[in-house]
Amino acid sequence: MAGPIAFYFEFASPYAYLAAQRIDEAAARCGRGVDWRAISLAHVLKARGVSRDAMPREKLDYILRDALRAAEMAAVPMRLPESFPVDSKAARQAFWRLKARDPALAVRFARAAAPVAVVRGADIATAEQLAEAAAPLGVPAEEIAAAQADATARQAAIDATDRAVAEGVFGAPSFIVDGELFWGQDRIAMVEWRLSQARPA
Amino acid sequence: MAGPIAFYFEFASPYAYLAAQRIDEAAARCGRGVDWRAISLAHVLKARGVSRDAMPREKLDYILRDALRAAEMAAVPMRLPESFPVDSKAARQAFWRLKARDPALAVRFARAAAPVAVVRGADIATAEQLAEAAAPLGVPAEEIAAAQADATARQAAIDATDRAVAEGVFGAPSFIVDGELFWGQDRIAMVEWRLSQARPA
Repeated sequence: MAGPIAFYFEFASPYAYLAAQRIDEAAARCGRGVDWRAISLAHVLKARGVSRDAMPREKLDYILRDALRAAEMAAVPMRLPESFPVDSKAARQAFWRLKARDPALAVRFARAAAPVAVVRGADIATAEQLAEAAAPLGVPAEEIAAAQADATARQAAIDATDRAVAEGVFGAPSFIVDGELFWGQDRIAMVEWRLSQARPA
Repeated sequence: MAGPIAFYFEFASPYAYLAAQRIDEAAARCGRGVDWRAISLAHVLKARGVSRDAMPREKLDYILRDALRAAEMAAVPMRLPESFPVDSKAARQAFWRLKARDPALAVRFARAAAPVAVVRGADIATAEQLAEAAAPLGVPAEEIAAAQADATARQAAIDATDRAVAEGVFGAPSFIVDGELFWGQDRIAMVEWRLSQARPA
């Protein structure tokens, strides 16, 4: 089996949340796995020299409306957080701590934690909120709390973000498929198209 | 019949070219017409306070690759111009001059002129190049030449660009559907979804 699709996602991104609902199934249809990598989009933008103020207000407003529309079109529940952008550091560190011991659990955690922000409209800045979302997965609240001071988890998040930058990423979600970059939840069909070209008849 | 979809396009944009191949048919499936409006994307970005330098090199490079990929996926011929961005003023003024007397001819002209840049890889800065593309439509070369000094056509292009800004446009192609903005050739399916919701059962 060919290598997995690298899925760079940001917990605070509504578009990344939409991608997270579909990428595993899309990859499976192409006989591929997915390597989930939580990154800090803010750090990617900083590395690219992009100021958050560089985006016109009209575009930011549009993007939030468009994400809600895309969710409605995909029949995925979504409600935007009251304040934007969301602080995603706690979620990211919990993800990388879990991934170090159980990658599949980390993915389940990512799927459970993202909706806290983009479906329930709550912040995900605190370990308490994340622990509540992770409890049904059997993740002890203590582990989420410990992740916040876990230097290895912190370094894994930094390394993943640096790697994203090195691989050409400038936004989230992004997918790297056999070295080729695809940006945006609206490019999953294109990822499948590309993989269908590569597949032997 | 409900009002037409406003289609704001930029002759120099490969994505707008892709949208131009599909928007009329998509609108027709929804019982709508399309009002084609050639604008200057450079002026829209200026009005929004966006500097061309604000886009990271990696993103610009990606966008050109992605446009080629999207064309390949849609089986639409595309080759990028050697120099970017393309000067689209001559094409825009010819479009608005033609539209004043024959809107349908202006659309046919737009469909014929856009490939000069994004399929043949040539510049579209000169009236000569445009006249060659427009000749099969029965548009005299003199009319294309005259458009370049046509103050009414120039003002129509400025008015359309100003109107785009007033309607919230920040990129091209954009569609305004019953007052709602959709940005990008990859949102045509979403436009159809929205119109299917509005249609009486």
